[in-house]
Order: sequence, then structure tokens, then C-alpha cells
Amino acid sequence: MKQHTLLQDILNAWLQLKAQTPLVHCITNSVAANYAANVLLAAGASPAMIDNPFEAADFASIASGLSINLGTPTQEQVKAMYLAAQTRQQEQKTWVLDPVGYGAILKWRSEIVDDLLQYQPTVIRGNASEIASLAGAHGTAKGVDSTLASHDAVSHAAHLFKHCEVVAISGASDYILSNTHTIKVNGGSDLQPKVTASGCALGALIAAYCAVTTPLIASVAAHVHFAIAAKLAAAQHSSVGSFNVAFLDQLQMLDQDLITAHIDIEILQHSPLF
Amino acid sequence: MKQHTLLQDILNAWLQLKAQTPLVHCITNSVAANYAANVLLAAGASPAMIDNPFEAADFASIASGLSINLGTPTQEQVKAMYLAAQTRQQEQKTWVLDPVGYGAILKWRSEIVDDLLQYQPTVIRGNASEIASLAGAHGTAKGVDSTLASHDAVSHAAHLFKHCEVVAISGASDYILSNTHTIKVNGGSDLQPKVTASGCALGALIAAYCAVTTPLIASVAAHVHFAIAAKLAAAQHSSVGSFNVAFLDQLQMLDQDLITAHIDIEILQHSPLF
Amino acid sequence: MKQHTLLQDILNAWLQLKAQTPLVHCITNSVAANYAANVLLAAGASPAMIDNPFEAADFASIASGLSINLGTPTQEQVKAMYLAAQTRQQEQKTWVLDPVGYGAILKWRSEIVDDLLQYQPTVIRGNASEIASLAGAHGTAKGVDSTLASHDAVSHAAHLFKHCEVVAISGASDYILSNTHTIKVNGGSDLQPKVTASGCALGALIAAYCAVTTPLIASVAAHVHFAIAAKLAAAQHSSVGSFNVAFLDQLQMLDQDLITAHIDIEILQHSPLF
Repeated sequence: MKQHTLLQDILNAWLQLKAQTPLVHCITNSVAANYAANVLLAAGASPAMIDNPFEAADFASIASGLSINLGTPTQEQVKAMYLAAQTRQQEQKTWVLDPVGYGAILKWRSEIVDDLLQYQPTVIRGNASEIASLAGAHGTAKGVDSTLASHDAVSHAAHLFKHCEVVAISGASDYILSNTHTIKVNGGSDLQPKVTASGCALGALIAAYCAVTTPLIASVAAHVHFAIAAKLAAAQHSSVGSFNVAFLDQLQMLDQDLITAHIDIEILQHSPLF
Repeated sequence: MKQHTLLQDILNAWLQLKAQTPLVHCITNSVAANYAANVLLAAGASPAMIDNPFEAADFASIASGLSINLGTPTQEQVKAMYLAAQTRQQEQKTWVLDPVGYGAILKWRSEIVDDLLQYQPTVIRGNASEIASLAGAHGTAKGVDSTLASHDAVSHAAHLFKHCEVVAISGASDYILSNTHTIKVNGGSDLQPKVTASGCALGALIAAYCAVTTPLIASVAAHVHFAIAAKLAAAQHSSVGSFNVAFLDQLQMLDQDLITAHIDIEILQHSPLF
Repeated sequence: MKQHTLLQDILNAWLQLKAQTPLVHCITNSVAANYAANVLLAAGASPAMIDNPFEAADFASIASGLSINLGTPTQEQVKAMYLAAQTRQQEQKTWVLDPVGYGAILKWRSEIVDDLLQYQPTVIRGNASEIASLAGAHGTAKGVDSTLASHDAVSHAAHLFKHCEVVAISGASDYILSNTHTIKVNGGSDLQPKVTASGCALGALIAAYCAVTTPLIASVAAHVHFAIAAKLAAAQHSSVGSFNVAFLDQLQMLDQDLITAHIDIEILQHSPLF
């Protein structure tokens, strides 16, 4: 893949997102519910938070995308997650898994995530601690925030390709990995981790993009969408309240010219590990 | 009813809302909980989200208003909904039903809504797809967003008057219907549906206004409150993050002069159907 | 304690908060979850909303702070609350109890709060109605908002020192009480109660400060942090949407110079009651 082709694919993905307004089924946490919905609306998708076990399978069947997030699981939500994920797998449709807080301390959710892997998520996205832990490394996390830099998790990610097609690791720079490619997304702002549920909302946006392009391009496009919006918002505001308002504005105002002008990605050499 | 009388009734309703700060009991979804509370506070009411079955009846009894919203129901919340609605009916007090996502795909909540109708909501509010489906039309919805224009649901709404006094259909223009009147509210902004839970928050505001005036005037006043605030906010900002901040500001800053200057309502001829 | 010493302690507490970024375990309500997390991030702490009974004890054990808030309890959350509180007591670690809505009408949560007192919260914080009711006064509340002024609850607070070390009463002025001191914090803005979940977020911030200083200083520092941020935000904006954005900005921008310039506290004479 060449840089130029990748840019073209991202521009097309963004165009298709705007054209199709994909309906994204989200089973997410109490912190992210409102924010992820607003992020999807701003970016050009249509959110629906259907997190009860009585409707999750039916809705997963008709939605264009599915995002499952383990931030604050309830027992009812967990049942909904299983049913929705199973439905997507049976119908050979994409879904995104966000294993928030995966690790040694939060055992219950980690076991649920392990179980959910049987339904073959299309994309697994998380911070470096979550991805490294899920891949079997004995990493440590501080609550739900990462104690590793994103590149530290890259070498571990290969172990996850038996479960999924793409692994996305967010951090100061983001790494999007498939069996064949490793793409680094630069940009963003250090204010972004100061806005709660940013990662959760990013997972939902990946699910939206998966409805309109390949999982690899979808994951890169979502991270680019976030990185540019955050960079432009941070150029306007240096404090977190104002930054977040501007970030939502910029998610909506993104267009092909802005993507072309501000995109900062690198296609990395694959290590022998891959 | 004449246009002039209606304006006067709305101005009085707004005055009474500010004077009484009605306590509104909300049983709402995880996306709307924070937003609906902030909307009520900005507009001049006092929110309380009491959604457990152990307190819902007692609280419904002392609250000035009740809003029941089916966005992301849990089994505990559903029990609370039944108890709260039953209490309001027994005590002949108003309550508002917002059947989010009602339709063929989301069966569980739709059956709950059907059950809740026995407790005779004062106002049923929703988008066109929800209202048409609830009235028995075989409409289609895209997730929780409407695929119908609001006026398309007007002809169906008459079927709901055996359950409620007022039907409110939100959209590019809003339609408020009673057995005797059909009132169209213009204004608002196409940015409003880009803010998640706007409709849910509007349902809560109708419940607040129901505490201070008749259900018909309450429903019109709440829609006018929203429409003017959205119109003024959209005049300041064209992107969704900034728009939403300004919308909350404008909800609070509304006054009788602004209502009089910006109100845009039509009293429509009743069709023979009514 | 002298005013000068107290100021120095608050400045040090703020420095330590920034230096240590304490991990705060929050079991909170659906209205506050997102907001409290954003407030903690803006102020300099690290939030994690772990509210299921399967992980609450383990997480309470490793977190630097714990905030338990009764805004919208579910049965699963209540189990988590008991386990987390018990863990903190057994390990002699601090925790903050926020008895939202405590009183005669909301009996279920009030009984849960009564039960939770056995685990000896470090700080109990609430509005005047909640504190007075919890202390045995037959006060009245309007939903979850107070009908008493904050100083009206001060005389009742002494009854709570058998359960906790510090009682914090928020209102137009805030009162922070220990067995030995009563400190009044002035400032803030009357726009603050117009932002939902402000008190809940304040409780979480007290929990954060408890990780870096004594419970008394922690409680005063958190209220001062809020009061100055609100005062500065209100100087910029007079409407609630814009105010709240600026409030988050100011929470983040606070520094030792701003604290020194704007702090408005009084060390009150202890009444014989204490």
C-alpha cells in the first residue's frame, strides 16, 4: 500500500460515511453513552444505544455497525453484548470490541471480553495497556488509563489476529495493525485524554466507518478523523471544556480539504513477527 | 382558539414555569439523563431522575411532573415506569410518555409502551415514525430516528386520543394535536437533531410545563421554548458543539419579549378525522 | 488553625493533586457519570467508574480514592457500594459518601445510606437538606435539591461525627466541619446549582483530594477549587451552557496564584455543641 492510495481510501471512506449515515448500534458505558452518541452525530453517523438483552440481537441484525464497550458493564448489558456479537458473527457483519479496563484487576469484565472473542470481533481497539494485557502480556494499568505508550503494545498485537482482523491502539500516536499492514496515525492533542470517554467514542466511530469501507481503512479513517479534529480544536483552545466543544465542531466540519491538509500517517515496515 | 389567545397562554405558561420551578420526575435513558436534567434546569424547572422501583411510586406522588422515556430501558427501570405511571393515573396527575424507538424492530420496549397506555398518559410525544407506529401504521424507523416527516404522522395521531389528551410530533416543524386543536410550531434548527437526546429532553420539558398549564398549552409552550432557543443558538453557531452550548444558554435566557418576537405557530384547520 | 496555615495547606494539597493524579473510584449516578469524570480529569485526578459488584471490592482496594453517590442507585450498584465501602474501611482507606436525596420521601436509598454508615465514611458531603435529614432532623427536601440554606444544617452536623471525620455542606456558602474545626468557604456562583450533578462531581473531587492530604484539608481544598473555578467562570459568562464550559476550563487552569488571589474562607468559632 502506498501513502497516496491510503489517503484516497480515507477520503472515500469519509465521503461514504457522510453519504450513508450508517446506523451504529452501541452497547456502551454510562460515562460514554451521551458523548459517543454526540460524536457519531457530529461525525456523520446515526447512533442507537440498544443495550437490553431483549432487543440486542434483533437490532444488531439490522444495524450497519456495532460497537461493544466494557466500560461499566451491567449483567443485563453483558447478555445484550453476547447476543449482539453472536448475531453479527452469524450474519458475517462487522463489529468493534473495546475492552475497557482489561487486565489483572478488573477480572469480571476481562473474562467477558475473553468470552466475546469467540464471536470474532472485526476490530479490537483500546489503549496500550488494554491491548497488551488482552494479548497476554502482564502489563499494568492504572484504572482504565494506560501505563504503557502505544508503541509498546504493537509487538503484542500480533497475538490478537487469531481473533480479529484489525487491532487499533490509541495513544499519543495511534497504531492500526492488520495481518499485512501497520499504520501509524500522528496528530491529535494531549487534551484529548483529558476528555472522558474519548476512546469509547472513537470505538463507536470505527464501527461507523466499518459500514462503509474495509476494517483496516475504517480504523485508520476513524483515527484520522479524531486526530485532525483534536488538532484543530487544540489550535483554538488550550483548556479542556472549550477544547471539547471545539472538538465536536471540528468532527462535524471535517472535509476532504482538511483531511488532505492535515493528515499525518506513516505506513510502517512490517516486523518479521507479522 | 385565536392566535393571540394562544400566544398569551404561552407567555403565561412560561411565567408560571419560572415562578414555580416545578419538580419533574424523570425516568429516562442513559444517553439523556444528564442532558435532560441540564435542559430542565436551564429552562427553569427542577429535575430528579428517580428510576428505581422502590422509590418511583412515592416520588411520582409528590413530583409536579413525570416524564417516562423508553430510550434504554432496564428491567428495574421498567418496573419503576409502571409504578410511577400507575401512581400518576390514580392521583389524576399529568404524565408524559416518550416511546423512543417504538416500532417493529424494537419489540420489547414497544410492548412495554403498549402496556403503559393503560395508565393514560396525558401527553404522548415522539418523532413521526414513533407516533405513526404507535398509532398502528406500519411505518419504518431507522434505529431511533424517524424516517417520516412530522406532518406524515398527523393523520395517524387521532387514533391515540383514546389513550391520551395530547399528541406531540417533533420534526422540522412540530405538530401538537388534541381532540379539538392542531397547532403547528415552526422554527428550531436542523442542528437540533444532531444533538443526541434533544427529543428526550423536550419530553421532560413538556412534563414541566404540564405542571403549570393545560396539557395542550404545555406541549405547545415546550416546543416553542425549544424552537426559539434553537433558532437563536443556530444564528450564533453553525456547528453542533457550539450550537448545543448556545442552545442551553438560550433556553435559560428566553423571556416574554423573545417569545413574542420569535414565536412562529399556526393554528390549523381540523380535519374531519378529528 | 490560622488562616495563613490553612491557605498553605490548600496550596500544598493542590500541588500534590497535580503531582500524583490520584485514581478515584466512583460509584455514581447516571446523571453524574460523565460529568464527574470530566471534572476529575480537568482538576487533575484520574477517574474510573467501576460500579458492578464483581469488581468493586478489588478496585476499591487499589484505588487512591473512593466516592459513593446515591443519585440513581440500581440493585447491582448498591451491592458494589457495600463491597467497596467495606473494603476501604477494612484497609483503613478514605472514602466519601454523598447521600443524594436522603430524606423521608426517598426511603430506599435513605436506608442504604444508613447501612453504609457502618463502614465509616471519611467524609459525608451533601446539601443542607440531606445533611440535616441524615443527622436526624425532620427537614424537607424538594426532590434532590435542598430547601434549607447551608448554614441551617451546621448545627445538625455534629450528630454525624460518630460516623465520619468530616461533614461538608454545600450551598451559597459551604461549611466544612470536623470535630475540631468549622470552615466556611465563600465564592462560587449561583449558576453552579443550575448545572446538574455539580454536587456529585464535588464529592468525587473531595475523594481525590483525600488521597493527598487530611480529610479536613481535602474537603476544604475541593470546595475552594470549585468555588474559585465557578467564580471565574461566572465572571466570563452569565448563562448556564457557556458557564459550564468555562467552569471546566477554570477547574483545569487553577494554580497557586489564582488560589491565593481568590480564596475566600473563614475559620469559624466552634459552637459549644461541638
